[in-house]
Amino acid sequence: MNDLLSVVEKTLDEVLPREDERPSELSQAMRYAVGTGGKRVRPLIALGAALAAGGEAKDAAYPAAAIELLHNYTLVHDDLPSMDNDEMRRGKLTVWKKFGEVNAILAGDALQALAFLVASKTPNNASRVVASLAKAGVGVVAGQVEDIAATGDTAYIYEHKTADLFVAAAEMGALAANADDAALAKLRSFALNLGLAFQYEDDLLDGDSPYTRTETERLAAETTDKAIRSLENLPGDVSVLKNLASKLLGRKV
Amino acid sequence: MNDLLSVVEKTLDEVLPREDERPSELSQAMRYAVGTGGKRVRPLIALGAALAAGGEAKDAAYPAAAIELLHNYTLVHDDLPSMDNDEMRRGKLTVWKKFGEVNAILAGDALQALAFLVASKTPNNASRVVASLAKAGVGVVAGQVEDIAATGDTAYIYEHKTADLFVAAAEMGALAANADDAALAKLRSFALNLGLAFQYEDDLLDGDSPYTRTETERLAAETTDKAIRSLENLPGDVSVLKNLASKLLGRKV
Repeated sequence: MNDLLSVVEKTLDEVLPREDERPSELSQAMRYAVGTGGKRVRPLIALGAALAAGGEAKDAAYPAAAIELLHNYTLVHDDLPSMDNDEMRRGKLTVWKKFGEVNAILAGDALQALAFLVASKTPNNASRVVASLAKAGVGVVAGQVEDIAATGDTAYIYEHKTADLFVAAAEMGALAANADDAALAKLRSFALNLGLAFQYEDDLLDGDSPYTRTETERLAAETTDKAIRSLENLPGDVSVLKNLASKLLGRKV
Repeated sequence: MNDLLSVVEKTLDEVLPREDERPSELSQAMRYAVGTGGKRVRPLIALGAALAAGGEAKDAAYPAAAIELLHNYTLVHDDLPSMDNDEMRRGKLTVWKKFGEVNAILAGDALQALAFLVASKTPNNASRVVASLAKAGVGVVAGQVEDIAATGDTAYIYEHKTADLFVAAAEMGALAANADDAALAKLRSFALNLGLAFQYEDDLLDGDSPYTRTETERLAAETTDKAIRSLENLPGDVSVLKNLASKLLGRKV
């Protein structure tokens, strides 16, 4: 797992602008946003999916970095004063709090564009990798709009706000490893269910779940089981994805 | 030219979500932002570049739509209260004024993702088309950051804030028509100079040019001439691009 994490960090460091690259306030805000504090769940899904499809982790290095860049842009925009108005994230000041609102909007915008630049460098199936990321990029915004509108349709919000990026991560990693359609379908199902499990846990940790604790724990366990069962009969090594699923269930942060 | 414009409008209509597509406030804001009031300069450059490279306009329909979606997301975000705080654009309320600030941020974000989804559908050289769009997507934000920081480096700002999207439009259209490297270089030079000419004119029309009227007119004419000279010895029909360049020079709006 540590080897995979270092692939992620190295690739992110390679693709992000140097801090002194002009305009430096933008480069600094972009690097700060992507930081090093995250769990890198989505990139690990991308790398794990490449391994599960019978490929190598390095096939999916660009997809892994791309999905993390896209995820981090959504966090930067979610934290904005006009959105969640959050001042802290991962124990640090949020991007708008540190660099100002305008730079936060623009750094988020640039991170999204950079995500697609990085995805386009994928050695195999690059245009399908980009399409998968872009579909999730639209979906995650749709989930956020419904969440803010407080429609109460938890299933829709969980699927789009969270699971869409998990599914794209798995799909992108699998495509980068030349997965066939059967493997792609299994990995998509894994990621969808893991995404739902992750979100049940997340709302429980944040204390804003629409379900009771017992219900949430049952739902999280059920979807995690479903995710793990989706990994049967894949051609490659599924240990990374299994490991990730077990770790995410019952996480404390 | 009208045939080409109808290719643009038809493709945009095809790729944008229906107004009732969930979440409808997002779909409506996205459609509203792209509207029908624009001059569609960038999509026409993409289609014109495909023709100039010896291809057909339809080869570049997706690149044309993609560059317009990306351009329009930048306008939506530029107009935000924390940015330019503009209430009107093209004689209509701006997106944030009509749909609220949160929906404007999110509609802009979704338009950017959609731009890449559409670019990924290009029949030829899709991953290079995406890379070109993404590079411009990062560049245009860099230009905007420098513009807001008021560094006074007009050359940098013009090149990135405006010309980057013109260059991407030409490059994407040319790639979609399988242009060779020589044709690509000519079309990039055309678009860079046209973009600079366009921005000289724009600042003159807005009354906030850093140059005098005489200087600006000279600079605009010079760069337009340079743009038109770049079109020599291309394998296809350059009349659309020539026509566009002449129209843009001396425009009144």
